[in-house]
Formats: sequence, C-alpha cells, structure tokens
Amino acid sequence: MKTENIPYKIYLDESEMPKSWYNMRADMKKKPAPLLNPGTGKPMTAEELGAVFCDELVAQELDDTTPFIEIPEEIRAFYKMYRPSPLVRAYCLEEKLGTPAKIYYKFEGNNTSGSHKLNSAIAQAYYAKKQGLKGVTTETGAGQWGTALSMACSYFGLDCKVFMVKCSYEQKPFRREVMRTYGANVTPSPSETTNIGKKILAEHPGTTGSLGCAISEAVEVAVGSEGYRYVLGSVLNQVLLHQSVIGLETKAALDKYGIKPDMIIGCAGGGSNLGGLIAPFMGEKLRGEADYRIIAVEPASCPSFTRGVYAYDFCDTGMVCPLAKMYTLGSDFIPSPNHAGGLRYHGMSSTLSELYDQKLMEARSVTQTDVFEAAEYFARVEGILPAPESSHAIRVAIDEALRCKETGEEKTIVFGLTGTGYFDMVAYEKFHNGEMSDYIPTDEDLAAARAKLPKMN
Amino acid sequence: MKTENIPYKIYLDESEMPKSWYNMRADMKKKPAPLLNPGTGKPMTAEELGAVFCDELVAQELDDTTPFIEIPEEIRAFYKMYRPSPLVRAYCLEEKLGTPAKIYYKFEGNNTSGSHKLNSAIAQAYYAKKQGLKGVTTETGAGQWGTALSMACSYFGLDCKVFMVKCSYEQKPFRREVMRTYGANVTPSPSETTNIGKKILAEHPGTTGSLGCAISEAVEVAVGSEGYRYVLGSVLNQVLLHQSVIGLETKAALDKYGIKPDMIIGCAGGGSNLGGLIAPFMGEKLRGEADYRIIAVEPASCPSFTRGVYAYDFCDTGMVCPLAKMYTLGSDFIPSPNHAGGLRYHGMSSTLSELYDQKLMEARSVTQTDVFEAAEYFARVEGILPAPESSHAIRVAIDEALRCKETGEEKTIVFGLTGTGYFDMVAYEKFHNGEMSDYIPTDEDLAAARAKLPKMN
Repeated sequence: MKTENIPYKIYLDESEMPKSWYNMRADMKKKPAPLLNPGTGKPMTAEELGAVFCDELVAQELDDTTPFIEIPEEIRAFYKMYRPSPLVRAYCLEEKLGTPAKIYYKFEGNNTSGSHKLNSAIAQAYYAKKQGLKGVTTETGAGQWGTALSMACSYFGLDCKVFMVKCSYEQKPFRREVMRTYGANVTPSPSETTNIGKKILAEHPGTTGSLGCAISEAVEVAVGSEGYRYVLGSVLNQVLLHQSVIGLETKAALDKYGIKPDMIIGCAGGGSNLGGLIAPFMGEKLRGEADYRIIAVEPASCPSFTRGVYAYDFCDTGMVCPLAKMYTLGSDFIPSPNHAGGLRYHGMSSTLSELYDQKLMEARSVTQTDVFEAAEYFARVEGILPAPESSHAIRVAIDEALRCKETGEEKTIVFGLTGTGYFDMVAYEKFHNGEMSDYIPTDEDLAAARAKLPKMN
Repeated sequence: MKTENIPYKIYLDESEMPKSWYNMRADMKKKPAPLLNPGTGKPMTAEELGAVFCDELVAQELDDTTPFIEIPEEIRAFYKMYRPSPLVRAYCLEEKLGTPAKIYYKFEGNNTSGSHKLNSAIAQAYYAKKQGLKGVTTETGAGQWGTALSMACSYFGLDCKVFMVKCSYEQKPFRREVMRTYGANVTPSPSETTNIGKKILAEHPGTTGSLGCAISEAVEVAVGSEGYRYVLGSVLNQVLLHQSVIGLETKAALDKYGIKPDMIIGCAGGGSNLGGLIAPFMGEKLRGEADYRIIAVEPASCPSFTRGVYAYDFCDTGMVCPLAKMYTLGSDFIPSPNHAGGLRYHGMSSTLSELYDQKLMEARSVTQTDVFEAAEYFARVEGILPAPESSHAIRVAIDEALRCKETGEEKTIVFGLTGTGYFDMVAYEKFHNGEMSDYIPTDEDLAAARAKLPKMN
C-alpha cells in the first residue's frame, strides 16, 4: 500500500482552525439574485426578513461584499468539541480500486448529529440567543438538521420546535428520540397545530408530508410566536457561509502537505455541504488564482441542477417564504416515495445556482441503487458506514478514480463525506434485500411541476 | 471557561501510536488462575485450546510473562483507519458541574462499530486469516462486538457467523443490518441450527436467549466446521491484551502534557474496555512506580464484582467452554429483562478478577436510571450521545467530580467513553417516557444462581 508521507487522517491543530468564515459572494462579480417579496416582487429588506430570521443572520444573508466574517468566540469554543474534522486519505479505497488517483475525503460525521449540519446549527442558535430570543422553529426531513439544531439549542438553553416530515417521523423513531434527548419538541408535519398544516391535511388527507410543507409550518409558528424566529439548515447564503468552515479546514489541511486537488466533489440537496466544502477553492477560482473541477452530485430522482430551470420560485409549499432565484424543479415537486435519504429539496442554493449558471461548476445525477452500491463498497473498504446523501459523492469519486485507472492519470480527488448512515438502515436493508428500485422523473412529471412556477419569470 | 494549555481533544500523531500491546499479567506477581478443562479439572493445554481458538491467539491467551507483544503491521494499518482515538478534556462538563476536578475521557466511539470492540476484532480476524482459516464464529449481545467482528472479517475476506441474542436480534434490527452490510451471517440465538440451541429451545420454549447460550452455539459451530474457529469479544486475556491500545494511547497523550491522573474509571461487563484502559497504569502500579485509584463500574442488575464470588465457573450456558476462575454470579444468572444495554455477562475477566482480589482496584455498582440520567446530562453538555455501557463510567466520573466540588480538591479524573448510543434509542425512549425501572437482584436470586457453581470450588 502506498503511504507516502501523508498520514491516513490529517487533523489540524486547534490553533490552525479557521477564525473567520469565508463568504464566496464577496468574490463573485455577478452576485446571486436577491430574495424577492412574493407580494411586491421587490427585493426583501432587512426589516422584512427580520420578522422571520434573527437580525444578525439577516445581515449575513444580505452581505455579498465582506469576504471574511469573524466566527464568534462562543461558536469557536463549541466547534472545538467536535472539530477540526479529519481529512482522510483513502489509501484503502485507492488500493482496492487499483487506481493511480489520490483520494481524500473530509469526514463530517464524527459528531452526534451525524453530519455537517451542526456547523450552521450552532451559529444560528448562538445568534438567536444573543438576540435574547426564547427559541427557534425549523423543519427536518431525514432528521440530521433537526438533530443538529436540537444539540445547538440545548447548548445555549433555547427552546427548539422541530416540524419533522411525517414519513420520516414514523420511519425514523430513533432520530426523533435523539432530538428528544436534547430536549427538542418534535411534531410530525403536516400537523393540526398550524393553519397551513390543517389546510394541507384537508386538501391531501393521508399525506406523508414534504420538506416544503414542514418549512411553511415552522415559519408560521415562528412568525406567530413572541420571541421566536425561524432557522433553516440549507439553501440560504448564511448557511453556506457557516459551512465554509468545512472547506477552509480542508484547504488548510491540504496546504499543510502541499497538495493541490484536481477536482472537488460534493453531494447537493439544498447546497449546504457543497457550498461549504468548495468555498475557498471557488474563491481562488473566482479571483483567478487557481483552477479546480468542481462537481455537484444530485439524485436522479430529484435533479434540480441537471434537469431543473434557473428561475424565481417559492421556497416552500405554503408560499409563505420569500421567492428565491435558483435551479428548481418547482415547489410542488416531491421525489418519488421510493427515494431513500435526503437531498430531496426541489431547489438549490441561489449562490450555487449562480455559480453553476456561470459554468464555474459541473453537476451530475446518479441513481440510488448505484449510490447504495458505492455506499456498501466504501463501508467495507474504508470502515465508515456512510449516509445515503454522502454516498452520492462517493459514487462519483469512485467513478472518477476508475476513469484515472483507465487513463493512468494520477489525479487528486477530494470529496465531502458529510455524515454517517446509522439512522438509514431501513434503506440499507432494502438494498440488501434487492427491494430498492430507481425512479427517474419523466419529462412530463417535470413539466407539470414547472408549470406552477410563479408568473414573474 | 478554563482552557489552560491543553486542547479540547488530544490526538496523538500516527508516529506516536503504540507499536506493541502491553500484557499486564507479565507484571503480576500472583498470576491470574489458568483456564481448566471441565472434564479433567486440569489447566487447558495449548493443543486443547487450539480446537476452539486460533493458534496465535492461544499463545497470547497463555502468555503471562511477555510484557510487550508487537502489533503486526497489518493490524497497525487498520488501526490507522480509525485510531488514534481522541483523549477529550471535558471542559464543558467541568464548567457545567462547577467542579475543580479536571476530567478527561478516552473516546472510542468514532468508528462504525460504535465502540472499542474493533481493537480486538481486527486482531482476532488477522490471526485467523494468517492461519489460513475460512471464517470465524462468535456471539453478540448488544451488537457492538458482532458489528466490529463483521467489519474486521470483511476487511480480511473471512466468513463471519454471528449468533445474536434473540431479544437483541428482534429489538435491534439496525444492528443486524449493519452486520449484513459487512457481509456477516447473523442468526438469532437460541437457534435450530445447533444441538445446544435445539436443546435450550426444547427446555425453554419462547426464551429470548442469553449471551451464555449464544456462546455455546457459536463454539459448537466453530468446533464442528472445517476451517473455522471461535472468537470472543471480552473476558479473555487475549482481548485485554489487544484492548491495551486504549490505555497506551491514553497514557501517551497524558504524558505528552505532563498530566498524571488521580483516578481511572471504566465500565465493566466482561472487562475488555476496563482491562485495556487501565493496562499501562496498572503496570506502573504493579511495578511500584506510581499509584492510581482504579474504579470498575458495573450495573446493579448484574453485579459480578460487587456481589459475586471469586470462584471457578462455566463461561457459557451449554458448559462447552473451559472453566475460568473469576468473580461470577453463576453461569445461570441472567439479568432482568428490563436491563438495557450491555454489561450483562455473569462473570468477569480472570485478570481483572485477580487484580480486584488483590485490592489493586475498586468496584462500584450503579442503577440504570441513574446511568441514563448521567447519559442524557453528558449528551447535552459534551455533545456526544453515549452508549448505555459507557454511561456507567460517566455516572461515577460525575459523582467523583461532584465530590471534588464539595471538598475543593482539583483531582484529575480519566474515564473510558467506550462508545455511542445510536442503536440504543429504544432504551433512551423508555427513559424519556419515565418507563424505565431499576432491578436489583435479591440475595436469594444470587444464592440460587451461585448454587450451580461447579463442585470443584
């Protein structure tokens, strides 16, 4: 086995951890399109956003000029409890594949939330606490974000109300129990506790819910409760900003050993992990200092980059949120129930959408049986049971490494391993039993969802 | 918050990782009692043990004179995939408790098996492979050992047959699925696939199984199958030897910062974690170089140290294994069904039993509601959801830290955090719902189980 001088796991020292987040938008010449007020069609003001989000997070959401924003001391103290995360050299995977490629992955699963989501959860909880709020509301699908936010709120003594997509609530009772361990209040969505929930239940009795619907409920409760605000785990600019800690650590670890990656691969649902992982690399690209291939990987069953349109759309089913310009499948789009794992949001971060539109990154879609095949292969070789979401990136990293084997190229591949799959064993079981199928939406399916895009486009 | 010059997490460099395991028995003047052949009452020979265990593991089992045994290069390579494990300074816990004590924990849960069990599993799989075997058999209770062995066997391409205590098999389908991800064959025990299983099922229809019974089945299959041997995840000397990597890393990390602990606390079921954690510290104690308080923590529902007798006993229900001298409750003892988590073996490692008998360590028992209270407290403060087993050590570490608060002593406490509780959410749910109760066996219960100890005592 080749081992060179690079350890299996590169850990930064605490003193080498980032002290600021990096804001990609500051280096973009053409900025991401602003959020619009669905009533007036005009850009959302800080005041309007302040009814939904914490003030400091609104400022971060709107700031597209400041490249570095200091990470408050309290957040850095929390980061030290589970960060720096390791950058792992996949020696075993390389050997098993017989590839000349050098593969690295940034592993964000070594914390109890099981994923990178904690990086933004703790930041959002901190600013809510600083503003003197009582609590926050949110939605969760696969449950990683809800778990992360529960942990963060528990740390700062904030109340945490989570609307969990009903099918996940029922299929993942353990996720729910972890959130309860951290004192969160978890409600299956749609619920009878909100007006929008009641409306959706009346229109679609027996629905198992969707992210878009859970967002609407969480926003309704936040806006209607004294001392509460709404927080979101992906899509938003502020979330990508917080998640830049992933990319900054990755780059610092690579720089320490003089490694320059050829390509960076990340899974993409709303874009929180991908946007964070690529941030400093994209920064170099935007400033013309270096070039990297950057590949977003999404499920074939929810292909917003590869088959969506770049347009203003609703962020939620209830249409209570601002409009965002993004690659979208339409806010009515719900992936087939046979789709396992997360990455099921109908749209994509505005920042990433703009970068994709400027052809600064690529996108690829993969089917879920191919994803689980890669997941099991990786688990056996590298000893980490990956989350289905993360396994999208593994799939493409393996494909690219096999391409290097054909061509003999010694490319350096970096991918994001966002989390672990301990709460996804129902999906793994389906895969083992040969009961997992693939669903790829037809052009007609997509056209029907697109037809409901807001008129302004 | 006090932070001194010590980071939150001390990671050794790869070059500082142990290159040999440490064998406590070599420094014991009075050695642990040998395993006996139940038929002859004489010490088991290497040849007799070789029918059950791999040859090199038999040699390690019987070697009570060699202090350091080199870790083969292949095992060290595997260790590098998930080790060194962090020694964490529990700054947040100290602050929350308001204690002057300094608390450290060695966290072994950052690998997919979720516990320290992988340290010995990979060693045992390696020696089986080296001997040219086709596969190994074993039992698993809570499932951590079975998962670890599945991962290790997958790595070396060995077949792995796991007998899983039936109640766990049914209550923890996800654990079973992780083992299947690694290609293991998992059978609920007792089963119809073995003679001893059939016998037990005939005598106790509807039994939900026990560790002792699953051991008997696994040994029967190993002995009766060409190219198979039996492997065990705890109790044995060889297992404590492999687990010494925990203590060696812990000591190296403490030494690096000039820290000398006052007390070392570990949970104890069969003794694998405790024996590994304390090894180098006990070595210093045995050689008269230093003194430490060493505390074993066991469940009040399965109190082999605190309420058992030091005697020769059967290791399994079917009485197919050698006899071991140990602190035991009697091989018929089964903890109450309301007992959650592991640490349910009726006996205790012979080495630890001898050390305890020589008063070189203390033992304490705790009830499970107290354990889960500590578990939840720890999860919220330190951000890691602990396994119920590990939480026994957390409970006593917190108790000792609170004692320091009363006395004002700045003691340094080190405890073993053996794993994560992601697959134990059913027990956490019971705790949250106030449905968890405590069971402490009566003196009559214990006397009844003790009455069945072998006559030779």
